[in-house]
Amino acid sequence: MTVDPDLSELDAALAERGFDGYLLDAASEESNQRYLSGFDAPDPFVTLYTPEETALLVSSLEYGRAKSESRADTVYRWNDFDLRERAQEVGRETARGDALADFLTEVGVSSVLVPRRFPLFSADALRERDVAVEPDGDEVVEDVRAVKTETEVDHIRVAQKANEAAMRAAEDLIAGAAVEDGVLHHAGEPLTSERVREEIEVTLLRHGCALDETIVACGADAAEPHNRGSGPLGAGEPIIVDIFPRDKETKYHSDMTRTFVRGEPSEDARDFYAVTEAALDAALDALEAGVTGADVHGAVCDVYEDAGYPTLRSDPDTETGFIHSTGHGVGLDVHESPSVSDRADDELEAGHVVTIEPGLYDPDVGGVRIEDIVVVTEDGYENLTDYPVEFEV
Amino acid sequence: MTVDPDLSELDAALAERGFDGYLLDAASEESNQRYLSGFDAPDPFVTLYTPEETALLVSSLEYGRAKSESRADTVYRWNDFDLRERAQEVGRETARGDALADFLTEVGVSSVLVPRRFPLFSADALRERDVAVEPDGDEVVEDVRAVKTETEVDHIRVAQKANEAAMRAAEDLIAGAAVEDGVLHHAGEPLTSERVREEIEVTLLRHGCALDETIVACGADAAEPHNRGSGPLGAGEPIIVDIFPRDKETKYHSDMTRTFVRGEPSEDARDFYAVTEAALDAALDALEAGVTGADVHGAVCDVYEDAGYPTLRSDPDTETGFIHSTGHGVGLDVHESPSVSDRADDELEAGHVVTIEPGLYDPDVGGVRIEDIVVVTEDGYENLTDYPVEFEV
Repeated sequence: MTVDPDLSELDAALAERGFDGYLLDAASEESNQRYLSGFDAPDPFVTLYTPEETALLVSSLEYGRAKSESRADTVYRWNDFDLRERAQEVGRETARGDALADFLTEVGVSSVLVPRRFPLFSADALRERDVAVEPDGDEVVEDVRAVKTETEVDHIRVAQKANEAAMRAAEDLIAGAAVEDGVLHHAGEPLTSERVREEIEVTLLRHGCALDETIVACGADAAEPHNRGSGPLGAGEPIIVDIFPRDKETKYHSDMTRTFVRGEPSEDARDFYAVTEAALDAALDALEAGVTGADVHGAVCDVYEDAGYPTLRSDPDTETGFIHSTGHGVGLDVHESPSVSDRADDELEAGHVVTIEPGLYDPDVGGVRIEDIVVVTEDGYENLTDYPVEFEV
Repeated sequence: MTVDPDLSELDAALAERGFDGYLLDAASEESNQRYLSGFDAPDPFVTLYTPEETALLVSSLEYGRAKSESRADTVYRWNDFDLRERAQEVGRETARGDALADFLTEVGVSSVLVPRRFPLFSADALRERDVAVEPDGDEVVEDVRAVKTETEVDHIRVAQKANEAAMRAAEDLIAGAAVEDGVLHHAGEPLTSERVREEIEVTLLRHGCALDETIVACGADAAEPHNRGSGPLGAGEPIIVDIFPRDKETKYHSDMTRTFVRGEPSEDARDFYAVTEAALDAALDALEAGVTGADVHGAVCDVYEDAGYPTLRSDPDTETGFIHSTGHGVGLDVHESPSVSDRADDELEAGHVVTIEPGLYDPDVGGVRIEDIVVVTEDGYENLTDYPVEFEV
């Protein structure tokens, strides 16, 4: 375990709200599970956190690894609660509920907070056995995770270095492309989204990062913020390159977007870029501990609306203009707390790692987005991004 | 949508159990969501399936893509149910519950089956608003997904071709290694798990596959079935290579394991391999539509127990010997229905795609596992794996 979380806020929440523990039933892909268990397993297992101890309930298959690798004080197996024998008597579903309830009793717990997305069948099973189970609408574990330790920020720095190498590989391909018949060409072939993505992903791999999805989108594709892009890249069209790698060792992410154009862009596209760069600067200027995510998002909307572009603030139904939030936390999840959006009323804290990613979208112009990743400090921010902001390459 | 699922079994289950629809609230990473929505989105969204129609409830950000790419008959946005305005009045959690309930009312649904792992907070919100919500302990959608169409089997074939190329790259590295001081060497450096894994992963990328975790483990690491392995590979030690790629386009997986040794293996390791190969053959001989997963698993246990090795059947607490199940279904998930294990009492059906992966583990000997992927047919199986079974390389 490379990160030793400060869980005092979770302890306080349990005490204040009168619950004995916090319960997870998920695979490690759910980041709260990874964070509280300190264990990496592909299939769901159970973690019970109390201010006194952390206990895991795992399959026999994971028992050895859980004992040596997790941060649990005690590791139990389902068969310690006779799951197999009980299943033959009462059926697997009932047996699992009985075993889960016995595990809680063994640890001395009769009421639990759980994540909002805790599995319904486990919650129903425990409630039927008189355990109080309440989804934590306040998302206290997400709040704890949002404030990064120095170690965690270092993990993100490492992922961001890989990200910059991958962005460089992508930019080099685009900048080196020849223009023929309005389409970018590389080595005599049309240069496609897929080809650029492969270059990005191989570069990330060589830097120890796993590849999630990567966006390399131009034209109308780029006007849809989550469209991954496909096919030949057009000359003079803004190409959004959005890379969000995860370090395979630490599991922490980074996130960065640049928009490039090769060949002559339209005047509208140039305006999109200039205003978006101004929006990025405005957001960064607004950023420091104590302001809210909504304040920062508001600064971006101001820039766009002043320049005459619609935003979801000025028109909640718009499908063009600035049609997403300004940013989000990054850590074990690529999207996590805190949000930098109109509904982020909580104060940003030192140690929050967030993206700032204004963008403009219109099917007739294409899409432009610029995204940096920063850590919030008491008097501003430290930009973890070391990559030029440059449109025409 | 490349797969058009036959959902008549789901329709029948809804009718028989008296529910109006089947509800999902998850990102596309949850395969039932991907299967029923036909939509690929990174953040959670809502799918409501009824025998008459499929409706999606998504954020504004995903609205355009959902309309053009999903298999939904109708796509709604949260703001169609005034989420934003309501949140300002009653808070976001209550507003979300109200909007979700209104969405169900709009589609004419007042009772829903949901997956066992449906999010508790959504279930509680609907129940408070008099919607009946029941986790489907029978996992009918998983049963539907288990039987593959020809198109789905073809998707798995494509992933398996990539898998074989990656395994070949791994085997070539290991077979070409020099032995110095008991450790494998490549290009003058110790050959590590990490180096072999990188070769596998780059090969998969070049073949259009995303890399999930990959296991390259030897020595005591390999004696823990889920240990990914790390550090230099030892001469004469069995090296387990377990690759389970996902095709990036179709999202379907394949899964294959081979165990290699470079240098002289111990007699115990040779015995592990010979008995495991016999166990694989016994399982394949037992396989056809109409037998149960437990029958096939029993054939494997028979071979191991007859040869004097412990299994979880002969000793539920053993930490050495054959300590996992024989296999599992493969599709959108790398582990899905049907199970090939002692608790798989349902009959295998033609079109089920399963792994057969017997193995032996002992910290003093290491681990050996051999895994093929096959599609069950009326009178046997078709082996989708085209890769030799060979230990010493």
